[in-house]
Amino acid sequence: MLKGLDEQIASIYAPIRDELRLVEDRLRGLAQTERPYLEPLLDYVMTNGGKRLRPAITLLAADFYDHQPENPRIMASAVELLHVATLIHDDTVDNSDLRRGKPTVSHLYGQHVAVLFGDYVFATSATFVCDTGNVRVIRRFSETIMDLASGQLIEYFSAFDAEQARKLYDERIYRKTASLFQTSAETGAILGGAPERQIQALKTYGHDIGMAFQIMDDLLDVQGSALEMGKPVGNDLLQGVLTLPTIKLLERYPNDNPVLDLFKDKDTETVNQEGKVQQALDMINDSSIIEECYSVIQRYCDTASQALEILPDCAARRSLLDICCYTRKRSH
Amino acid sequence: MLKGLDEQIASIYAPIRDELRLVEDRLRGLAQTERPYLEPLLDYVMTNGGKRLRPAITLLAADFYDHQPENPRIMASAVELLHVATLIHDDTVDNSDLRRGKPTVSHLYGQHVAVLFGDYVFATSATFVCDTGNVRVIRRFSETIMDLASGQLIEYFSAFDAEQARKLYDERIYRKTASLFQTSAETGAILGGAPERQIQALKTYGHDIGMAFQIMDDLLDVQGSALEMGKPVGNDLLQGVLTLPTIKLLERYPNDNPVLDLFKDKDTETVNQEGKVQQALDMINDSSIIEECYSVIQRYCDTASQALEILPDCAARRSLLDICCYTRKRSH
Repeated sequence: MLKGLDEQIASIYAPIRDELRLVEDRLRGLAQTERPYLEPLLDYVMTNGGKRLRPAITLLAADFYDHQPENPRIMASAVELLHVATLIHDDTVDNSDLRRGKPTVSHLYGQHVAVLFGDYVFATSATFVCDTGNVRVIRRFSETIMDLASGQLIEYFSAFDAEQARKLYDERIYRKTASLFQTSAETGAILGGAPERQIQALKTYGHDIGMAFQIMDDLLDVQGSALEMGKPVGNDLLQGVLTLPTIKLLERYPNDNPVLDLFKDKDTETVNQEGKVQQALDMINDSSIIEECYSVIQRYCDTASQALEILPDCAARRSLLDICCYTRKRSH
Repeated sequence: MLKGLDEQIASIYAPIRDELRLVEDRLRGLAQTERPYLEPLLDYVMTNGGKRLRPAITLLAADFYDHQPENPRIMASAVELLHVATLIHDDTVDNSDLRRGKPTVSHLYGQHVAVLFGDYVFATSATFVCDTGNVRVIRRFSETIMDLASGQLIEYFSAFDAEQARKLYDERIYRKTASLFQTSAETGAILGGAPERQIQALKTYGHDIGMAFQIMDDLLDVQGSALEMGKPVGNDLLQGVLTLPTIKLLERYPNDNPVLDLFKDKDTETVNQEGKVQQALDMINDSSIIEECYSVIQRYCDTASQALEILPDCAARRSLLDICCYTRKRSH
């Protein structure tokens, strides 16, 4: 299945393959432009094995109308850089040792370097966006950085608080994930010369795909094995972070629930915590909750696809539609 | 002397007093605009007792020619926000408990919140700059964030390495401090409608004042008492960071020097380290090194003043000149 999805990605990216290669060159070229000691760091994070989904969306969203190709390319590089910067800081604050099976920057170089290097990559992404010269795009980009940081802060402040976490769930996953997908599509559309109505359609598409993507991520955390995920399963719950499957579990058993026990006893021994997490994961996997979550993902993919109906039929549109299918099926 | 300098600051700020108050309102108003849990954080860092020197320079640099007042005000708020964001991350990576005598964000809320909240403040500052709609200014601002991060990284990577630290000293203090002073003056001049030659003059002024400011900071770290500084004296040296006074000490005694001993034995006991630091501080204070450093500061202040000669004589210019005097005399 994994290989099948890799092939699917290659076929989705076909209309923008050459453009994406230029983006890749630009990202890898960054390592050569700065102080020697930044080189290994930049090199390390730019070869992180990411699928480049966000820059691909930018390039595809730009591919509907006539435009000069340079700006979408710059923007695509910037959204990927921003994503990379976010991962560096997220792994730092979460004390994560591994990301996609590789040691994280904070694990390799320490938190000190990880914080400052993350800042540097954030700023580099912003400088890239300035090269587009488009103030509307630059502004959306800055707002997205605010969303990403405040999304993580919401997650932190509502951790181990079932009521708050439920209330803020949609806003939280919008800010921490969907906002950047939305911006990837919207800015691609703007720089690709799309008319305003089509820009709004692509923005909706990006938002909905982003929401679907995050819920799928949450689902994988309660389903897969540690090996497939490159990180421990049940990680969200261990950190007190409620996701859609655990929210549904709470709704089903509001009074007697291993999640509530876990949140109440969060300061007791680890063994107990892990037992509770496993119990919650088993209950979720033995119920219809997984199916219900897939339905929510499906609904977001449907509305994302529908948003594209007003756009001209072309290879880029077919690829964006295929990304909806891919989002529903991905396993990592 | 402290009171005298506070009065001096008030008189320097006189031509832009009302503008600076509006900037202050804008900064303090931020706390009301976001999620409830961001309110105390924003409130805390915006009442940090800073002197608002960078926004004052932006407003003064904008005060020479006719212009609409809104943009310099926005820019002044942005440079202060950027400065605040930098302090939040610096204190986090340095594990500092105190800043201006108050507990740091990372000490109060933990590193997790400090990293993400710093990101949020960085992004907020960038969003402010977007409101100017001026791409040149936005670009300079992003580049400055890169400078700030890479300046701190240079400092980290060259710590305990006397040769590298000496070689990179000018570049390091430019990036970590002078760059933002330069940008404060340059962007003020741009948004204040100054002609290009005058923009360049104010940019030079900002650069030179920034260099003087950082060397003064370095000097205070080897001179003052912990009480005056609000942080321990000799802190730079303890962290393996060479500054102008310690570089001069190394030049004077290249073979037999407590700094070299300290760097060689950096992994041994703290008591020994503090003894070596004290020995280095005593040697510096008993020599003409302090005077030599003051001469370097004086030279930067002189070139900063000279740069202003092509600008029209007015209250703003007199204030910028007074900032040169202030920089030479400040004690904290």
